[in-house]
Amino acid sequence: MKLSFNKNELLKSLNIVMKAVSSNTTTPLLKCILIDAQTNNIKFLSNDMELAIETNVSGTVIEKGTVAIDAKIFYEIIRKLPDDLVDFSTNERFIANIKCGKSVFNIPAQDPSDFPYPPMIEKDYSLGLSQFTLKEMIRETIFSLNMLENNKLMTGELFEIKNNVLRIVALDGHRVAIRKLKLGADYQDKQAVIPGKALNEISKILSDNIEDQVRLYFTNNHILFAFDETVVYSRLIEGEYFHIDNMISNDYRTKITVDKKEFHDSIERASLLVRESENKPIVFNTVDDYMEMSVNSSFGSMDESIEIEKEGEDIRIGFNPKFLLDAIKVIDDEKLTLYMLSRKAPCFIKDAEENYIYMILPVNIL
Amino acid sequence: MKLSFNKNELLKSLNIVMKAVSSNTTTPLLKCILIDAQTNNIKFLSNDMELAIETNVSGTVIEKGTVAIDAKIFYEIIRKLPDDLVDFSTNERFIANIKCGKSVFNIPAQDPSDFPYPPMIEKDYSLGLSQFTLKEMIRETIFSLNMLENNKLMTGELFEIKNNVLRIVALDGHRVAIRKLKLGADYQDKQAVIPGKALNEISKILSDNIEDQVRLYFTNNHILFAFDETVVYSRLIEGEYFHIDNMISNDYRTKITVDKKEFHDSIERASLLVRESENKPIVFNTVDDYMEMSVNSSFGSMDESIEIEKEGEDIRIGFNPKFLLDAIKVIDDEKLTLYMLSRKAPCFIKDAEENYIYMILPVNIL
Repeated sequence: MKLSFNKNELLKSLNIVMKAVSSNTTTPLLKCILIDAQTNNIKFLSNDMELAIETNVSGTVIEKGTVAIDAKIFYEIIRKLPDDLVDFSTNERFIANIKCGKSVFNIPAQDPSDFPYPPMIEKDYSLGLSQFTLKEMIRETIFSLNMLENNKLMTGELFEIKNNVLRIVALDGHRVAIRKLKLGADYQDKQAVIPGKALNEISKILSDNIEDQVRLYFTNNHILFAFDETVVYSRLIEGEYFHIDNMISNDYRTKITVDKKEFHDSIERASLLVRESENKPIVFNTVDDYMEMSVNSSFGSMDESIEIEKEGEDIRIGFNPKFLLDAIKVIDDEKLTLYMLSRKAPCFIKDAEENYIYMILPVNIL
Repeated sequence: MKLSFNKNELLKSLNIVMKAVSSNTTTPLLKCILIDAQTNNIKFLSNDMELAIETNVSGTVIEKGTVAIDAKIFYEIIRKLPDDLVDFSTNERFIANIKCGKSVFNIPAQDPSDFPYPPMIEKDYSLGLSQFTLKEMIRETIFSLNMLENNKLMTGELFEIKNNVLRIVALDGHRVAIRKLKLGADYQDKQAVIPGKALNEISKILSDNIEDQVRLYFTNNHILFAFDETVVYSRLIEGEYFHIDNMISNDYRTKITVDKKEFHDSIERASLLVRESENKPIVFNTVDDYMEMSVNSSFGSMDESIEIEKEGEDIRIGFNPKFLLDAIKVIDDEKLTLYMLSRKAPCFIKDAEENYIYMILPVNIL
């Protein structure tokens, strides 16, 4: 095969497919990207057997062919080449020849015959979204799941379409994060649990431009994200997801509104005294228009108070400060509202329209 | 004791003394900084038993005293406080109370009686320099020493004053880096070997302003760096340093001049194919006005050629590309000149005035 690329275009495409290259595998082919130029259209493919990425590359096919090449070394070479035309060719022994400027590389590549192509997927159900919106919704929820959890369902995010609303949910045993988006068209109800790892990688290649679209295709076992010149395939996590609506309640006896930055900074200071080994809570104690916040650990103690707007009863309640911080950090509003029922019941941080809901379980305090 | 600080001034001083706080010690006092306000002048001290730092802190002494406080937790707390006045006090049980805005911390601190003060040093021999110049000379040489080397002398840098020239030398078994600076006054000849670790930490707190001065005080066992409000003490490494002048030669049979950026980029590309485990050389082969550069390893091969200006004989010689890159990266000149005698003799990269000399041993090639 014989191909010609512009270096920067080539690098852009490589950056995308690198996201699904397996780093810890003993199968050399899974460390490769497949360069597929069987037609006049050049495609790069990568597949770590959970996630697969296929992208169209702009370049010229001088002689058709296919080859698998070690992704890491190929990427690093291209990255270091001068900004010029890159000529890529292979011979019958799968030696890849890369020429650019006065530089010539010869790299042993591999027979592509056994490279795992992504599955063929029937594209009968799909959903269109702005890439930026999807990226944001992932960022605003993904911290709440635990990729190391034994319960596989907790390692993924629920994507649920119901009554023309997309709801993304992530949870571990201590908290739930929910983001909602009203959809602009009529969709059939649908739900799927997508691995957190896949969402993480997809986030990295989605654009930050609100105008750029991504289309999500759902099947029983897979989801496919199509955007720009790229298609990302991921397996779905099997099983029935947790009954979220049973966890969420609108009951509260205490509703407080705080300045986000002040609240964030206080909790951040409190967490300096909290180590995982000790697991000490931050304790909130509302007294009329103020809330006292305190921590007491073997490292020392902290006491602060911040102004609040309060409706309902006073409350004394403890939290793991990390869980609060994680949620606060992804909320853009300047004011936060917390809804609490008792010191044993979950606290909800949410906006009036419930575009976001962060539920956090309290910690037992004396 | 009772002190009052401006938060940002306090943080600036802490940033300096943190550099000599021991991170892996079982002695809790060595993880502390000493806050010494025995007079109306507040000093912070840290000492990891190799390096000690003392700095004057701007603040107000309301009640005199001394205390040792865990450096890490104190630093992190101050860092997260609002930009405001910080009140610091301790009681008779060495509990430190830190107040700032609406925030109050109580942190167990320590009896400072056994804190290791730095040695008293007679300041009879000293040398004045620009802080920026010293920082640069360290950066331009320190990569050539090996802090893990068993031979202690290779873990430090030689500071030599001879004929009113300061020469800084670093070496491992494969290369030597030398930077020279003409001094503006008359100095007695002197030499000392300063631990690389100390120089690394000092570099981090020296200013980037060429106007700011640092004064170096030499004794038989210690060196002291005095600048701004800070004094840094380091032990010296004992023993007779290598005879540098015997290693340096002005003989050459091949002198080549290359464009630095082109040369750098080619070697960087070549090093992509070189792994430490294999230790393959980059081979230079001059042919009239060109130099071919090639690498051949199990990862593949690279061939390039660059334009050179050559005086003398053609040469074929091999190098560890990392050693070349390390030196090239700290040279500011746009053109580099290499002096070579044979493929078994060291190569010298130096400027006409020998303000810098980088000697690199070649690697055997067939």
